[in-house]
Amino acid sequence: MALVNPHGKEKKLKPLLLAGKELEEEKKRAKTLKQIKISSRESGDLIMMGIGGFTPLDGFMTYEDWKDVCGEYKMADGTFWPIPVTVSTDTSVKVGDEIALYSDEYGEVMATMKVTEAYKIDKEFECKNVYRTTDMKEHPGVKMVMDQPGTNLAGPVKVISQGTFPAEYPNTYMTPAQTRHLFLEKGWNKVAALQLRNPMHRSHEYLAKIAIETCDGVLIHQLLGKLKAGDIPAEVRVKAIDTLVEHYFVKNTCIQAGYPLDMRYAGPREALLHALFRQNYGCSHMIIGRDHAGVGEYYGPFDAQKIFDEIPEGALETQPLKIDWTFYCAKCDGMASMRTCCHGKEDRMLLSGTKLRKMLSENEEVPDHFSRPEVLKILRKYYEGLTEKVEIKTHKYSEGA
Amino acid sequence: MALVNPHGKEKKLKPLLLAGKELEEEKKRAKTLKQIKISSRESGDLIMMGIGGFTPLDGFMTYEDWKDVCGEYKMADGTFWPIPVTVSTDTSVKVGDEIALYSDEYGEVMATMKVTEAYKIDKEFECKNVYRTTDMKEHPGVKMVMDQPGTNLAGPVKVISQGTFPAEYPNTYMTPAQTRHLFLEKGWNKVAALQLRNPMHRSHEYLAKIAIETCDGVLIHQLLGKLKAGDIPAEVRVKAIDTLVEHYFVKNTCIQAGYPLDMRYAGPREALLHALFRQNYGCSHMIIGRDHAGVGEYYGPFDAQKIFDEIPEGALETQPLKIDWTFYCAKCDGMASMRTCCHGKEDRMLLSGTKLRKMLSENEEVPDHFSRPEVLKILRKYYEGLTEKVEIKTHKYSEGA
Repeated sequence: MALVNPHGKEKKLKPLLLAGKELEEEKKRAKTLKQIKISSRESGDLIMMGIGGFTPLDGFMTYEDWKDVCGEYKMADGTFWPIPVTVSTDTSVKVGDEIALYSDEYGEVMATMKVTEAYKIDKEFECKNVYRTTDMKEHPGVKMVMDQPGTNLAGPVKVISQGTFPAEYPNTYMTPAQTRHLFLEKGWNKVAALQLRNPMHRSHEYLAKIAIETCDGVLIHQLLGKLKAGDIPAEVRVKAIDTLVEHYFVKNTCIQAGYPLDMRYAGPREALLHALFRQNYGCSHMIIGRDHAGVGEYYGPFDAQKIFDEIPEGALETQPLKIDWTFYCAKCDGMASMRTCCHGKEDRMLLSGTKLRKMLSENEEVPDHFSRPEVLKILRKYYEGLTEKVEIKTHKYSEGA
Repeated sequence: MALVNPHGKEKKLKPLLLAGKELEEEKKRAKTLKQIKISSRESGDLIMMGIGGFTPLDGFMTYEDWKDVCGEYKMADGTFWPIPVTVSTDTSVKVGDEIALYSDEYGEVMATMKVTEAYKIDKEFECKNVYRTTDMKEHPGVKMVMDQPGTNLAGPVKVISQGTFPAEYPNTYMTPAQTRHLFLEKGWNKVAALQLRNPMHRSHEYLAKIAIETCDGVLIHQLLGKLKAGDIPAEVRVKAIDTLVEHYFVKNTCIQAGYPLDMRYAGPREALLHALFRQNYGCSHMIIGRDHAGVGEYYGPFDAQKIFDEIPEGALETQPLKIDWTFYCAKCDGMASMRTCCHGKEDRMLLSGTKLRKMLSENEEVPDHFSRPEVLKILRKYYEGLTEKVEIKTHKYSEGA
């Protein structure tokens, strides 16, 4: 029994983060290089490359990689990959230049890069293929692509910073090598990842528990990168999850960890990326719920499940654990999903995340069975501590994960 | 996507039941043959061979088969098989004889057989290996073996009767070809079997629903053969399950069916046999709960799960879906198992089958959350209709399945 292999032909984690003397020297050298400003999404991608989560990438993608990833879910060398990982700039950069990738957010250089190619892309082609829409007004992922500068740069990177993640989330932020080590230590080999970017209510607890019933354990894997305005910050979510796990989970059946990416809201394509990097983290399964990584009405509720049947067999070792919409049902007298509950709407406790945020921020009572009291207490405390009223967005973001 | 293959090298169902003109002629011929009386267990095995559930068996096992099955989980030709399938007699029979196998229970000849071998066995060797005990006083399966006549007969059989099963359970009794056809019709390929020999309470419902959450469907597969005195008859159980499914399951997520075998109570070895014939029925998975097919204290509660890791890889296509002890927990506010509930005994609704039978037969209230009211109503009606008080055995039989 062994864990799933890291993604790619070499089946070996490839972290691009320097360490020790090499790191110190590269940091010095970076100061002498031309600086290019990068976005939050690009920083997250860099850190992910740094810790080996995007194994086997060597750096940002070439034009051929970009084109094949958009069109055929694979890089130029044939490696399966569902979403372009690119960096772009308006600054003049020449092939052969060595540059420093600077993040305004962290106020530091994240990586150095040897530019092997500078190319223009057809942004609409990327959006149509990857996001299935070119709606840059309402789709945050599309907006990111359409707003990005006009020239993409390709080339290998040397990562020199993980931003604030290690300091900010010392117990939660983990590298793929760390989670793999933990799984092996616990004797786990069938491990399901639960992607989370919201506080963990009972519907998410049920997803995790379905997996625990039949796997060795669950990795509750929280997005620590950027979401959108009005969302509950990761540190509050981490605390809420820790409390939930403490009161409602059996010891040694789950691990909470976090990863540094931003959401792209690319629905089915992002579900594939989520499974791909979970393979690097050592997870044999990835829970894919309803409308995974979706936004608005751009994707059918089960598109992110179906896409796993459409990619070539063997593209990923990590398999989807497809689960329908989950909720508490009074007639079932417990948690259920659309696949296991045959009762009516009136029997089910369904609350949109938006409605719940409104209830919590206005200190209203939350109906029974929706969330654990220990979790609600932490969320209420967060809302009480807010000095300004949080603007509650009415835009429908998927609560699918 | 396809169903799992039938067991054996030929990967083809091999039903030994004759039909049409062949059947009529064999029935006539059977009347001219020497009759050998067979036991209820042997009748069940014959019917199972008849409908292809014991594919790829041709008949009752030879001495070499018997020895290798007991010692090495395989027949003489190397085919994986976990429990001897034998017939025995005290009547004098010679190799080359054609005999008729007569069931007192059904009052008819079940099959004809060409005797290729008559042999003595070391019953203690069989019991020690297969049942892990030679306790013939308390272990019903061991008792069956120790009580059986002294000579085993081997040879191919032609099955000419399915006993009363088709008439008695017209909607429930199904052949492997029938369930396979149903699965294909519904587009199922990942199908979990739930073995049942008790009425279906909420703990069993939860097992089925965990499987439904992640599979295409569940085969609720009821034992229609003999259990022990005091048990609820199959027709009552079938009715209770139909009611449960009607009120608590989503349409097209489960099928109720039954199979003709008696219980052997061989624990881990029987769990393997259960998975093997479920493979013939087309199930990719078999739910193995706590103390599956156990009796008394002969087997550890998870021996029947562990044994699947001890058999050679590829021995069976059908994989175990290992699930811990399940129950309602008030603090969890729903169903859970020892793997997903971290609360105390005082929060859990646990009732032994024995205690429940006592409550029902004495018309006491059954505590909430243990069973669905629709199911209890049917069970109560059955107990009310009994003219004599049912003797409630205090012997601990596993409720594991």
